[in-house]
Amino acid sequence: MSVQLTAAMLEEYRQRIRAELDRAVGFWLENSHDGQHGGFFNCVGKDGSVYDELKYVWLQGRQVWMYCRLYRTVERFRRPEILEAAKAGGTFLRRHARVPSSGGPEKCAFCLTRDGRAVKVQRTIFSECFYVMAMDELARVTGDEERQTEAEKMMDQLVHWARVDPSGLGRPAMPGDPPVNSMAVPMMLLCLVGQLSEGRTSLARKYGEVAGWCVQQILQHVQRDGTAILENVSAEGKELPGCQGRLQNPGHALEAGWFLLQYAQERGDVALQKTSIEKFMEVPFKTGWDKEHGGLFYFLDVDGHCPTQLEWSMKLWWPHCEALIAFLMAYRHTRDPAMLERFGKIYDYTFSHFSDSVHGEWFGYLTQQGQVALDFKGGPFKGCFHVPRCLLMCEQLLDSLLDEK
Amino acid sequence: MSVQLTAAMLEEYRQRIRAELDRAVGFWLENSHDGQHGGFFNCVGKDGSVYDELKYVWLQGRQVWMYCRLYRTVERFRRPEILEAAKAGGTFLRRHARVPSSGGPEKCAFCLTRDGRAVKVQRTIFSECFYVMAMDELARVTGDEERQTEAEKMMDQLVHWARVDPSGLGRPAMPGDPPVNSMAVPMMLLCLVGQLSEGRTSLARKYGEVAGWCVQQILQHVQRDGTAILENVSAEGKELPGCQGRLQNPGHALEAGWFLLQYAQERGDVALQKTSIEKFMEVPFKTGWDKEHGGLFYFLDVDGHCPTQLEWSMKLWWPHCEALIAFLMAYRHTRDPAMLERFGKIYDYTFSHFSDSVHGEWFGYLTQQGQVALDFKGGPFKGCFHVPRCLLMCEQLLDSLLDEK
Repeated sequence: MSVQLTAAMLEEYRQRIRAELDRAVGFWLENSHDGQHGGFFNCVGKDGSVYDELKYVWLQGRQVWMYCRLYRTVERFRRPEILEAAKAGGTFLRRHARVPSSGGPEKCAFCLTRDGRAVKVQRTIFSECFYVMAMDELARVTGDEERQTEAEKMMDQLVHWARVDPSGLGRPAMPGDPPVNSMAVPMMLLCLVGQLSEGRTSLARKYGEVAGWCVQQILQHVQRDGTAILENVSAEGKELPGCQGRLQNPGHALEAGWFLLQYAQERGDVALQKTSIEKFMEVPFKTGWDKEHGGLFYFLDVDGHCPTQLEWSMKLWWPHCEALIAFLMAYRHTRDPAMLERFGKIYDYTFSHFSDSVHGEWFGYLTQQGQVALDFKGGPFKGCFHVPRCLLMCEQLLDSLLDEK
Repeated sequence: MSVQLTAAMLEEYRQRIRAELDRAVGFWLENSHDGQHGGFFNCVGKDGSVYDELKYVWLQGRQVWMYCRLYRTVERFRRPEILEAAKAGGTFLRRHARVPSSGGPEKCAFCLTRDGRAVKVQRTIFSECFYVMAMDELARVTGDEERQTEAEKMMDQLVHWARVDPSGLGRPAMPGDPPVNSMAVPMMLLCLVGQLSEGRTSLARKYGEVAGWCVQQILQHVQRDGTAILENVSAEGKELPGCQGRLQNPGHALEAGWFLLQYAQERGDVALQKTSIEKFMEVPFKTGWDKEHGGLFYFLDVDGHCPTQLEWSMKLWWPHCEALIAFLMAYRHTRDPAMLERFGKIYDYTFSHFSDSVHGEWFGYLTQQGQVALDFKGGPFKGCFHVPRCLLMCEQLLDSLLDEK
C-alpha cells in the first residue's frame, strides 16, 4: 500500500475512533452517575437505564481512573463534570471500599450497595488493584497527596500478598492446590507499577525490581516451545496438568502483549519488544481467531479439548479492545504492514459487531456467530473502562503515527 | 386421544427411555471408574476419554447415590460391578471428602485431586448434601451402619447451618448482604429428608418438622400474585431488589415442583399437590420455554431485563431432565392430557437435541439455537446423575402408568 493510502486509512480510523470515544464517554456521563451517594451505577441497560443499583468495586475504580486519565491527557475531556464525577467516585471508594478483615490487613470489597455497604469480598487481589489505579490517577489530577499515599500503601500490600504471603487474602491453603502463577496477577502488578511510576523517579526506582519480577512471571506463560501462551503455569513456570494447565485466554495474552511492549519500549529492551509481539500478539491471534465466524474466542484448550467454561466460544468485547491496542502499538513500533492488517481485521469485526449505533457504547457479549447474546452496556464485569481505554489509546497511537508521517 | 393410542405412546416412551438409561449407565460404567484410587473420573469427553483427573465432590456423591439407587431398585442393574464401584466411591469419599476447617465443624471439599487431596472448599452446603445422599443410599444397599450414622451426623450439621447458624460455612456476614432464602437450600434439605426417611419411621418423625419448614421456605418463592417463581427471596419471603431478586431459573422451579408433588402425594396434601403443579410446573414452563427455538432457557429476569449470567439463553440438559420428571409425575397424578402433552413436547426437544446417538449419554450445553456448544459428557457440574435419575424415574413412572391401565 502506498504511503498516501496508508495515511488516508489511518486518518479514517482516527476519525471513527475519536467519534466513538466521544459517544462512549457521553454514554457513561449521561447514564451512570449517582448524584446522591457518589460513585457510579454499573448495571445499565442497552439504552442506559439502570437495572440494578449494586456498585462493583473493580468498575468503580476503573471509572474513576478512566475519567481522570481522560481529563488529564485529552484537551476536549478537560471538563468540570468529568472531574467532579471522578472526585465523587474517589470519595465513595475511599469511604466504603475497604472492609475490615478478621485480624489481617484491610481488603477491598468486590461489591457494595448503592449507599456503600459491603455485599461481597473476593479472596483475590483485583478489587485492590483497581482501587490503586483510581487513587493514583485521581491524585495526579487533583494533587491530593492523601490519595497518592493511599495508593502506595495498598500497592505495598498487594506486592506482599503476591510475593510474600497470600494468607491475608483469606483463601485457605489446600494440599491439592499448590501455588499457581496465574497470568492476571503479574499483569496487574506490572500495570500498577507503570501507573505509579509515570514521571516519578523515586517510585520508578522503588518498584523497578517488582516490575522485573512481573515480566519474568509473565514470560513463564510462554509454553510448548513458544507456540502457546498458557493462562496458568506452576510457580516454577512449568505446565500444569488438566484443564487449568491447558487453558488459553487469547484476549488476556494480547493485553499482556501490549503491557510488555510498552514496558520494553520504555527501557529500550529490543529482545523483549520482539517477544511481546511474536509470542504475546501473533501467537494468540493465530490460535484465538475464529476462522469460521470471525472474532476472538474467549477461552481455548491448547490440546483442542472443549473448555469447561460455558462461555468459551462467545465473543467478548474486551479481548477485541486489547487486540486493537496491541496491533496498533505493534504497528507503530515496527511499521510492519502485517501488524496494520491484523489491526484492520479486528477493527472491522469489532466496529461492525460490538458498537451500538442506536444508543452508543458497545455490547459486551456476542454468540460465537456474532449475535448480541447479552444486550446491556454495563454489568458486574463490564463498565466504563475497556472500550474508552481502547479508543483513547488507539486515538493517541494514531495521532503519533499521523504526526510522525 | 383414545385410551389405546395413549397406551401405545406411553409404551413407546418407555422403550426409548429404558434403552437410553441402559446406554447412559453403560457410558459411565465404561469410562468413569478410577480403578486405582476409587471414585470416578468426572471430566470425560464426548467419546468417554478422560480430559482432566480432578474429582468433584458433588459428582462423586451423586454417582455413588445413582449407582446404589439403580442397584437397589432395578433388577437389571443389580450387578456386582455397579455395587463395587459404588462402594469404592463411598470409601474414597469417606476417606477424603471431609476437610478440617479452622475451629468449626468439618466441611466437605468441593474438588479433590485424583488421589484425594483437597483442591477447593466452597462456602455453601452442597458438597455436604451430596455426601449425605451417597452415604445414606450406600448404607441402604450394603447395610453398613457406619455410613448411615455418617449421613445423619452430616444432615444434622446441614440443618444447623441452614436454620441456626451459617457461620461454620466460612462466609463472613456482610452488612450489605442480609440472609437470603435461596431456593436451592430448602430444596436440597427436603430432598435429603426424603432420602433419610424412606421406610424409617423414627427418622421420618425426627425430620418431619424440618421437611415442613423446607416446604414453607420453597413456597415463599411463589411471587407476584402467583405468576412467577423467583429463585431468591428475602428471609421474610419478600421480593429482593435488583437482579438477584428478579432471577428466574425455570429448570430449578420445575425440579422443586416434583419434589413438592412427591412430598404432597405421600401426605395426601391436596392443596400442595395443586400448588406444586400449577405454580412450580405450569408457571416456569410457560415463562421458561423458548417459543422461537424450543427448549428451556437457563435463566430469565422476571421483568424482561437481560440476565447478567453469560449462559442465560443456553439450553442445559438438567432443566430438561427435571421438566420430564415433573410433567410425567403430574400426568400420573392428574391424568390430565395437557400434562402428557407438555411431557411430549419436552421429550421431543430433549431426545432430538441432547442425546448423543454416537457415543451414548447426553450433551450438556447447547446454544439458544440448539447446537452443541460444549461437547463433553462430564465436567465440573455434569456427571452421572441428572440423565440417569431422570430416565430411571420416568421409566418407573411409565411402568406404574402402564401397569395401572
